[in-house]
Amino acid sequence: MRNLKLTIEYNGSKFSGWQKQTGKRTIQGELEEAFFRLTGENVCIEGSGRTDKGVHAMAQIASVQTESKIPLKNFKYALNNQLPSDIRIKKIEIAQKDFHARFSSKKKTYRYVVHFGKDKPAISNEMVGFYRNDIDVERLQQAIPLFVGKHNFKAFCSANTQVTNFEREVFDLTFSKRGSNGVFEITGNGFLYNMVRIIVGTLLDYASGKLDLENIEKAFETGERKYAGTTMEPNGLYLKKVVY
Amino acid sequence: MRNLKLTIEYNGSKFSGWQKQTGKRTIQGELEEAFFRLTGENVCIEGSGRTDKGVHAMAQIASVQTESKIPLKNFKYALNNQLPSDIRIKKIEIAQKDFHARFSSKKKTYRYVVHFGKDKPAISNEMVGFYRNDIDVERLQQAIPLFVGKHNFKAFCSANTQVTNFEREVFDLTFSKRGSNGVFEITGNGFLYNMVRIIVGTLLDYASGKLDLENIEKAFETGERKYAGTTMEPNGLYLKKVVY
Repeated sequence: MRNLKLTIEYNGSKFSGWQKQTGKRTIQGELEEAFFRLTGENVCIEGSGRTDKGVHAMAQIASVQTESKIPLKNFKYALNNQLPSDIRIKKIEIAQKDFHARFSSKKKTYRYVVHFGKDKPAISNEMVGFYRNDIDVERLQQAIPLFVGKHNFKAFCSANTQVTNFEREVFDLTFSKRGSNGVFEITGNGFLYNMVRIIVGTLLDYASGKLDLENIEKAFETGERKYAGTTMEPNGLYLKKVVY
Repeated sequence: MRNLKLTIEYNGSKFSGWQKQTGKRTIQGELEEAFFRLTGENVCIEGSGRTDKGVHAMAQIASVQTESKIPLKNFKYALNNQLPSDIRIKKIEIAQKDFHARFSSKKKTYRYVVHFGKDKPAISNEMVGFYRNDIDVERLQQAIPLFVGKHNFKAFCSANTQVTNFEREVFDLTFSKRGSNGVFEITGNGFLYNMVRIIVGTLLDYASGKLDLENIEKAFETGERKYAGTTMEPNGLYLKKVVY
């Protein structure tokens, strides 16, 4: 029995998210089916976390226990041959016996790409989020430190969650403007449901003047979702890196 | 009656190309339906040319004759409201009475984006072409001048064409490497069916050593398709600009 660590790139546009669901096209579902076609084995492929419908991954990590004897050097190519072109295995490594993609993760980095303008661009419409209002980049930069560090992020997660501990630590959060796009990168020890998309939305709403500092402070103090900003759409979100 | 000039951006991934076809999702079809929903008028929207299934446009140009009285400044927003998010009207202008998007065009620029590597990237799999072999960029640059100027491009078009005059003039052709991608830009007075994709494939096959100079020279001399290189896939192709 080998425990494998997979590094996976995918375009989430045509998937109902990571997690297996009967009758839906999901990344986990496609991976497990491809694994079955290749090895005849019914495995469970555990991701570092579940990405939502429409969310992409530059380097999702997954672990899988397998009896398969396929040599490591052929495994990646053989598995890619069984996969659709919007999922690619970038790397397969032998992991420690107790390595688990979700439980062993120490930090994660997400990227959020937003397009500013009157119209969402047609070509990249599934690859970027969209923000119609003008923003003040300096104002945005000034608000970033509020989100860095250990905080109760209850106000910055979807009500639709079963979590009870809302404390998370954000290690790093950056924003840079690139032409008519903006790129956020956020690294933390873990993220609540929709947390990245709500933090990005809150920063943009603050930068455009729709929210003021009091709203953000009140969001942190009360934990109430209503004080935070918009939930940005999933299309602009990329799981960039998972560190173990 | 007004004659309108439309500038249109689209992501071709989910279309069976530009041209209307019963029962298929096409760009022309979606545009005409949107126009009908907005104005009640059954118009014919003429593109500067037909793009194939999977080909994108940064700025396709189309012309349309309309009785609609909608003020020009509202027309774009109203029409975009009726369109799916993978088609966006960028601009609507009043054109001369005799302006015709196809017949009046003087030159066109296409861009072709190719990804080099062992695996096609999952995230951008519908937005780039893919070339697996290593290429010698200097060798590629040396072959470019062969394609510039007035030539008979019969060997560089799909056999599947009804054209009888194969002479076209290429005004400009450039290649630049950007990380693991390469970007071709080609401007000409007109292009034969699959001509850009075959020129790009021929240049890459030459740059990788699969073809030598004799092949290219023979292709021009004989007009036989077999001497030219691969037809690159449509995903990497973008109609960038049409000049009138």
